[in-house]
Amino acid sequence: MKKVLAINSGSSSFKYKLFSLPDEKVIAKGMADRVGLDNASFEIKLADGSKHVEKTDIADQEAAVNLLLKFLKEFKVVSDLNEIVGVGHRVVNGGEYFKDSTIITKENLSHIYELEDYAPLHNPAEGRGIEAFMNVLPDVPQVAVFDTTYHQSLDPVHYLYSLPYEYHEKYGIRKYGAHGTSIRYTAPRAAEMMGQDLKDLKLIICHLGSGASVTAVKDGKSFDTSMGFSPIAGITMATRTGDIDPSVVQHLMHVEHKSIDEMIHIMNNKSGLLGISGISPDMRDVRESNTDRAKLARKIFINRIVRYVGAYIAEMGGVDAIVFTAGIGEHDVGVRQAVMDAFRYLDVIPDEEANGKNGENFITKPNSKVKAMVIPTNEELIIERDVVRLTHIN
Amino acid sequence: MKKVLAINSGSSSFKYKLFSLPDEKVIAKGMADRVGLDNASFEIKLADGSKHVEKTDIADQEAAVNLLLKFLKEFKVVSDLNEIVGVGHRVVNGGEYFKDSTIITKENLSHIYELEDYAPLHNPAEGRGIEAFMNVLPDVPQVAVFDTTYHQSLDPVHYLYSLPYEYHEKYGIRKYGAHGTSIRYTAPRAAEMMGQDLKDLKLIICHLGSGASVTAVKDGKSFDTSMGFSPIAGITMATRTGDIDPSVVQHLMHVEHKSIDEMIHIMNNKSGLLGISGISPDMRDVRESNTDRAKLARKIFINRIVRYVGAYIAEMGGVDAIVFTAGIGEHDVGVRQAVMDAFRYLDVIPDEEANGKNGENFITKPNSKVKAMVIPTNEELIIERDVVRLTHIN
Repeated sequence: MKKVLAINSGSSSFKYKLFSLPDEKVIAKGMADRVGLDNASFEIKLADGSKHVEKTDIADQEAAVNLLLKFLKEFKVVSDLNEIVGVGHRVVNGGEYFKDSTIITKENLSHIYELEDYAPLHNPAEGRGIEAFMNVLPDVPQVAVFDTTYHQSLDPVHYLYSLPYEYHEKYGIRKYGAHGTSIRYTAPRAAEMMGQDLKDLKLIICHLGSGASVTAVKDGKSFDTSMGFSPIAGITMATRTGDIDPSVVQHLMHVEHKSIDEMIHIMNNKSGLLGISGISPDMRDVRESNTDRAKLARKIFINRIVRYVGAYIAEMGGVDAIVFTAGIGEHDVGVRQAVMDAFRYLDVIPDEEANGKNGENFITKPNSKVKAMVIPTNEELIIERDVVRLTHIN
Repeated sequence: MKKVLAINSGSSSFKYKLFSLPDEKVIAKGMADRVGLDNASFEIKLADGSKHVEKTDIADQEAAVNLLLKFLKEFKVVSDLNEIVGVGHRVVNGGEYFKDSTIITKENLSHIYELEDYAPLHNPAEGRGIEAFMNVLPDVPQVAVFDTTYHQSLDPVHYLYSLPYEYHEKYGIRKYGAHGTSIRYTAPRAAEMMGQDLKDLKLIICHLGSGASVTAVKDGKSFDTSMGFSPIAGITMATRTGDIDPSVVQHLMHVEHKSIDEMIHIMNNKSGLLGISGISPDMRDVRESNTDRAKLARKIFINRIVRYVGAYIAEMGGVDAIVFTAGIGEHDVGVRQAVMDAFRYLDVIPDEEANGKNGENFITKPNSKVKAMVIPTNEELIIERDVVRLTHIN
C-alpha cells in the first residue's frame, strides 16, 4: 500500500504524520526533538494508540530521518521503504516564486533559503529539513507546501504597502500572509458544517497558535489576512509583536544601540505574550498567572483579534461565520467567549455550554445570525493531498 | 479688546488666526509661506473678506512674526500690540511629558524638541515657531496645545505595543496618536448636531488631511486611534505609509543599503498616495489622474479607512455616527461615499444628495441607523480656548 509523509520541520526538530493511501488514514505520527542538542528524543505513535519514545543522541536532521525510517520498519508500519511514495513539507513563505505547492528541485530549494528575511524562524529550518529527506530518500519526490500560496488571491488593494511602488516591483515587497495550509482545511470544513457552498460564504478564520493570524475568506478565496510580508505583522502572538509603528523600531535602535536585525529578532522572539507578561509565551501559563501584566497580555491578545475580525467584517461587508482553530483557538474557552461577546452588536449569540467543550462544533446558538465554530485544523491532510495531486500518485 | 493668536508652524511656514475676545471671532487669518526660501510671501485675510499678499524676502520665522505684527497694525486689526494677550501653538507630540496643553517655559520647550523621533516632520518646526514668537513677544504667554494629550485617556490595552514591557517603562514606548485638537472640536460638535450627550455616543472621527487618522470616541473620551508612537502608523496618508510590517523595513535596509533613519524618512515623506501613485501627495491630483497606480492609491486610501472604522466599531461594540473632517474628509465626496457604502451592512443609508454638498451637514438619510456627517474642523478655536483657560485671560 502506498504511503505519504507530511513533515513540519523546526530548527532542531521535525513533526511527522504518515498517511496510507487512498484512505488518508494516519498510521503513524510523532516527532524528532532536540536534534543536534542534549537530551534528544524520537517519538512514534501508532494507529493502535501505542507510543514509543527513544532517548538517544540525534546528530543531525539526516540522522533523525534515518531514525524515523528505522522505527517505521521496526513497528511494521511499512514493510518496504518503497511504499513511501512522496514526502510533503510545510514551508512558511514562498514569496513571489511560488503560486502553488511544488515538487522540490535544487533550484527552487535555493529560493526557499533566499526567502529567509520573509520568515526567519521558519524558512531556513524547513529548507534543511527538506534536504535531509532528499539525502536519505533520493528517489522519493519531495513536495513543498507553502503557507503563503493561498493568499496569492489577494487583490493589490489588500496586499500592497503604501510605499514607493518601485519597492514592490523590484523586491516583491507585499503582504504574503501565512497559515494558508490551515485555512485550506478549515474554510471548506466550515462550509460543510454550515451545509453551504464555500463560494457563497464570508468567513473569518482565527488561526490562534503560537503564531496567530486572522484571515477573511470571500468567494471561496483568501480576501485579506493579518500577517504581512513576514509573520511578524497582525495580531499579538506568543513571542511576536504583531503590528507596530516602525518609528518605535527606529527609536529603540537609537536608545538601545541595537541593529535592525537585533530589533527584528526581539520582535520575533521576545515580544508578544512573553514580552508583555514577562512570564511565558504559552497562553496557558499567561492565563493561569494573576499578575497585572499577564492579565494585560491576555486582554491585548483578545483585543487585537477583535480589531482584525471587525476590520475584515467591514472589508467584506458582513460575515457569516467566525472560525477558531489551532492551539489557543481549539482550547481556550475564554478567548473564544471574549471574541464572540465583542460581536454581540452583530447578533452573534454565543452558546456558552457548547463553547465550554472543545472539539469540532458550533459555539453559537442555532438562532445566531453570525455563526462561530471550533474546527481543529489538519494541515498535514492538506500537505498529503498536495503530494498526491502534484506527484500523480493515484 | 483682548485678542489671542492661534499658530500652526511648519518647517518654512506658519498659519495664523487672530481671535477677538470674548466673542471668539476670527478677525484676521493667513500665513507666512516659504520662510527662508525663494519666493516667500505673507498673506492676511481680514474679517471684511479682503485679502492682501506681500511677496517679499522673509529671512526667518522671527522676521515672519514681525511681518505679521506689522500687518495687524497696518490694517488696524489691532491698535496696540498689547491687545495680543496670548499665543497658542499647535504641537503634534507631547509624549509622556504633557497630559494637557501647557504654558511654555524654557524647560518644557526643550521637551518639545526632545520628542523629535515621535513626530519628525512637526515637533522641531513647531518648537522653532514657538521660539520665534517668544523672542518677538517676550511678555506674552505662549501656550502649546498638543495633538496627543486627548489620547491620554486610552486604556493600556489599546496604547501598549506587544513588545518587552520594559521598553514602555524605560522609554515611554506607547501609542500617542494625534489630531486630538481636531477631535476636541468635531466630537462635541457631532453630539450637538445629534442632540445627544457626547458621553452617551460611540463616534468614529475620520480626520482625513495630508496627515490622516481614525479615532474611536466612547464615553466622551478617546477610546482608540490609528496613529501610533509617531504619525506614521494607521491609515495611508499623503506621503506616509500608515501601518507596515517592520520586516519590510529590515529587508529594504538590507537590499537598498539604507539606514533606519533614511527608511523612516522615506516612509514619512515619499510614501502614501505619492509613493503608490507616483504622481502627487495631493488627493485632488490623484483623483483626477487616470493611471492604474493613481486609482490603486485611491482604493488603498479608502480601504485603510474602512479597515480602521470596522476595527473600532468592533472595539466599541457598535457605532452611532461616523464623522468626516479635514481637507479630504470635508471635500472628497467619493471617499465619503465609498466609506459609507462599505457600512451598508450596519444599516448606514447614505444620502447621496447631501453628500454631494460640502459644509457641515448630515450625509446619511434621516432613517439611517448609523449617522454620518461632515464637520469642518476648527483646531484654532480649541487652541484659542486653551490659551484663555490656561492664562486666565477672561
